[in-house]
Amino acid sequence: MRHILRVNLASLSSLREPVPEAWASLGGRALTSTVVAQEVPPACHPLGPNNKLVFAPGMLTGTPAANSGRLSAGSKSPLTGGIKESNAGGTAARMLAKLEIHALILEGMPQGEAWYSLHVTKDGVSIQEERDTVGMGNYELVKVVHARYGKPVAVVSVGPAGEMRMLTANISVADKEQHLRSLGRGGLGAVMGSKRVKFISIDDSGTPAITSKNPEKFKEAARIFAKTLLDHPVSGKGLPTYGTNVLVNILNEAGGLPTRNFTQGTFEGHDKISGETMHDTIVARGGAPTHPCHPGCIIRCSQIYNDQDGNYLTSGFEYETIWGFGADCCVENLDDIAMADHLMDDLGVDSIETAVTFGVAMEAGVLSFGDGKEVVRILRDEVGKGTPLGRLLGGGAAQVGRAYGLTRVPVVKGQGIPAYDPRSVKGIGVNYAMSTMGADHTSGYAVATNILNVGGRVDPLGKDGQVELARNLNIATAAIDSTGMCLFVAFPALDIPECLSSLVDMINAHYGISLTGDDVTALGKSVLKLERKFNLAAGLGPEQDRLPEFFCLEPLPPHNVVWDFTPAELDAYWDFD
Amino acid sequence: MRHILRVNLASLSSLREPVPEAWASLGGRALTSTVVAQEVPPACHPLGPNNKLVFAPGMLTGTPAANSGRLSAGSKSPLTGGIKESNAGGTAARMLAKLEIHALILEGMPQGEAWYSLHVTKDGVSIQEERDTVGMGNYELVKVVHARYGKPVAVVSVGPAGEMRMLTANISVADKEQHLRSLGRGGLGAVMGSKRVKFISIDDSGTPAITSKNPEKFKEAARIFAKTLLDHPVSGKGLPTYGTNVLVNILNEAGGLPTRNFTQGTFEGHDKISGETMHDTIVARGGAPTHPCHPGCIIRCSQIYNDQDGNYLTSGFEYETIWGFGADCCVENLDDIAMADHLMDDLGVDSIETAVTFGVAMEAGVLSFGDGKEVVRILRDEVGKGTPLGRLLGGGAAQVGRAYGLTRVPVVKGQGIPAYDPRSVKGIGVNYAMSTMGADHTSGYAVATNILNVGGRVDPLGKDGQVELARNLNIATAAIDSTGMCLFVAFPALDIPECLSSLVDMINAHYGISLTGDDVTALGKSVLKLERKFNLAAGLGPEQDRLPEFFCLEPLPPHNVVWDFTPAELDAYWDFD
Repeated sequence: MRHILRVNLASLSSLREPVPEAWASLGGRALTSTVVAQEVPPACHPLGPNNKLVFAPGMLTGTPAANSGRLSAGSKSPLTGGIKESNAGGTAARMLAKLEIHALILEGMPQGEAWYSLHVTKDGVSIQEERDTVGMGNYELVKVVHARYGKPVAVVSVGPAGEMRMLTANISVADKEQHLRSLGRGGLGAVMGSKRVKFISIDDSGTPAITSKNPEKFKEAARIFAKTLLDHPVSGKGLPTYGTNVLVNILNEAGGLPTRNFTQGTFEGHDKISGETMHDTIVARGGAPTHPCHPGCIIRCSQIYNDQDGNYLTSGFEYETIWGFGADCCVENLDDIAMADHLMDDLGVDSIETAVTFGVAMEAGVLSFGDGKEVVRILRDEVGKGTPLGRLLGGGAAQVGRAYGLTRVPVVKGQGIPAYDPRSVKGIGVNYAMSTMGADHTSGYAVATNILNVGGRVDPLGKDGQVELARNLNIATAAIDSTGMCLFVAFPALDIPECLSSLVDMINAHYGISLTGDDVTALGKSVLKLERKFNLAAGLGPEQDRLPEFFCLEPLPPHNVVWDFTPAELDAYWDFD
Repeated sequence: MRHILRVNLASLSSLREPVPEAWASLGGRALTSTVVAQEVPPACHPLGPNNKLVFAPGMLTGTPAANSGRLSAGSKSPLTGGIKESNAGGTAARMLAKLEIHALILEGMPQGEAWYSLHVTKDGVSIQEERDTVGMGNYELVKVVHARYGKPVAVVSVGPAGEMRMLTANISVADKEQHLRSLGRGGLGAVMGSKRVKFISIDDSGTPAITSKNPEKFKEAARIFAKTLLDHPVSGKGLPTYGTNVLVNILNEAGGLPTRNFTQGTFEGHDKISGETMHDTIVARGGAPTHPCHPGCIIRCSQIYNDQDGNYLTSGFEYETIWGFGADCCVENLDDIAMADHLMDDLGVDSIETAVTFGVAMEAGVLSFGDGKEVVRILRDEVGKGTPLGRLLGGGAAQVGRAYGLTRVPVVKGQGIPAYDPRSVKGIGVNYAMSTMGADHTSGYAVATNILNVGGRVDPLGKDGQVELARNLNIATAAIDSTGMCLFVAFPALDIPECLSSLVDMINAHYGISLTGDDVTALGKSVLKLERKFNLAAGLGPEQDRLPEFFCLEPLPPHNVVWDFTPAELDAYWDFD
């Protein structure tokens, strides 16, 4: 029987509840955002007892549907001050789904200084006090937890950064190889740390396979759906071959690769950090150039990156991270960036926020642009140990910008801007400004249509059509984030009609319902609207739906373009029913 | 001829303009807020080229009116993100008034790395590049500038903190003894630093005395006004004898003295830091227990505090500072607090924001509660040198709270809460929440009526009448801040009818106009409304008119009261025409 599992950290007790009818057809982001909007006071302190941390598998998680194994977490974000959903792969979502846990909700906070772990099985949850694992990095923690239970239980954890309630702290989810995926953005690790939960282990032993209401129809739809993923050039070829890092050369070519703390759109050293170079390096060192982030993924854009001696260094080594420390911080040594990635996973900090933070810190003179060795040292010895410098950088880009009195601080709603310059990729700029999540490239990936010619073509340097494009993609994203699907299914969904129809068919066959494509769009709209409503009540209004002023004042080479949307043009984004 | 003096730091040029008619009858805060509201885009970065820094003497500054020599500065605050006015004594306001400078407006910012000074005389302003004075503390700077010009010119300056654009940075104004007064709050020193102006020197040589339109009437009104100041027990006796620090014992008695980072309302060591103890210490060491902060002050609540050897240590040593490092940080050694005060004046940081910051840092474990020696060391060696820890603390209480993931962070709109706990002095709590300036005890000093029985009596622990009280006092304050008067004239104004009427008579006699008391109230209302409008456009809406959640959750001993105003009760504050 599907249920809601609540764990109250104040009373150290748990409660199984039936799924309220209004929540029954929701999953992933639609569910986490609904719970947060209904149960978290928008004005509460995100690290106080009134905030909640909600985990939910997607609508299709646990089924054989390709790429459906993402875990969503939702909360009030301590970084943005607004609502937050973040999702990742790993094994946890599938195990929760098999345990028929519709959502796991962490509430309250302990009085004392003790730390806890939650062990979730078919018999419920046990809450244990933790001692030896406190202060442990995520890599070691996963091994210790697997050893404790004698099997590869799913592990959802915070590293030292989450324990320290740093606003860059993420939540880690282990994958099958005991490597780490991240619910990266918005400082959700700090929320988990504030509740003094070091980790959640999940064991789905003894649960039956998940069955669909209409297995035959499901199977047929799943087959069509998977074929569209493999047929599309981006999800079927580009991503599996080079990973997300295929984008370095593409964005550099487009003049949209933010470089040297967002002062240029091209990076001289792009070749040294590109997906092509990375692919060859991985192959030469015996790593895995292609790898799934969760069971059931057939895009396999992840990889395993070994060091010069052929030993494991990092995995899930993404474009965003490589852009951030590469172009934005001008580090040309891919091994330095890989080491930074390893450390960030181990400490549990968001690699986007951290990279943008380092770019700002370099501008402030804390370290030199290009100094990858110093990046690694600061991550390990300062952030990892919570020194004053570590606390400063652990608070994110906005904090460093304020501490050093800088104006070139690429953040929206306090969250660092990802790897596409909004001046020369204006569609994504609109979503940086308008997203309910703060600056976020996954809130409607307009780069697809601006740069990759997916879903048509909208000139990246012009304003025409960008607001509508960005809004529609954000609506679609909110729906996709609710299914448990990887967002990369959006590439075929934009170009191949059967992709979206087969996705809807899968949902219908699985639940025995009869949604239409319009219903899915309506779901996306309703998610955005409830998130927006929460943000307004939390004090994030239209004045916060803006890019920093420097984008309007400083033309970006090589196109020498500025950000030139008027407030009224942006505010029209929310004009939809 | 009264004029507006504009200095453009981008072009290093200046411009004298006639006073626009709409600005002619304004002064002080009414003028600075009007200029900011009209000329600064609310969405601009406070440290960017579109912000302006406006200095204005008050409406009566330069006349023989008692206590009329305050200098106002206005800008968009980098600390609160909203409009800001801060005012102080010293000699600058009077000199500007004698030079017939209605307002001095700093605009734009230099391209390069050079620093500048402005020298203002009857012949205009000269802009000079500064080298030797860069990095200099305010105390030494004043001496160097006086030596440069061979006379006691007025000096308005930033210390190292302002140069580093720290958000706690204030603007200093020298007094006649080359000691320092501070335009303390809101980080205005960072704005001046962002414009790369190290100091402004003002020489009123060769200017005639300021004459009133009706000298006889002015003289008579001024006499009555001065008498009311001397007749009132607070401004005529309490303040001159013990200074503002008379409040330590009074607030401790009332259970409203925020102690140990706002966890208690009484401080065990109150006797060691009280105004009474301080008075005796000053007398025993040959200091000055009473002293005017600007020429013409007859309240003389300032003082000169010597060290154990009888050498000058600090002056303008206020209740807020002593409360902050004393009760809030639990430092019981008055000499340690005095040394901290000296260092803060020299570095140019706001002593309220800095004290609240240290209280939060102590809760974070950065240093121990009560460790005055470490406070001094951190101010001198970390804040003064811009180390990472110094940058962290130099960013203010909100920043430290975020960096360490704390919930007990006493700030409103990013600005630290002063020396009266809002739970047990609810009237001032209303103004902390509602003030256009962020948490600010000078935005309507309801402590007067809650605690001191001035202007009647409203129970400090109850909610009844507090919103109306706070609003009316804030309206009156906005008007007083426009006259150039010290806010302490509010004490007699609340109790002695002749005080306000003679103040109005002075304005009328000086300008040859015929305002009524209602006009003065209308002025105060209009100032608040334009400030509020600016803040709304800057993104500070009703959701920011709130106290931090912990005040609602944590009862304050000894009265065990919480902050219990509803949003609707607070929002009614703005219901006035």
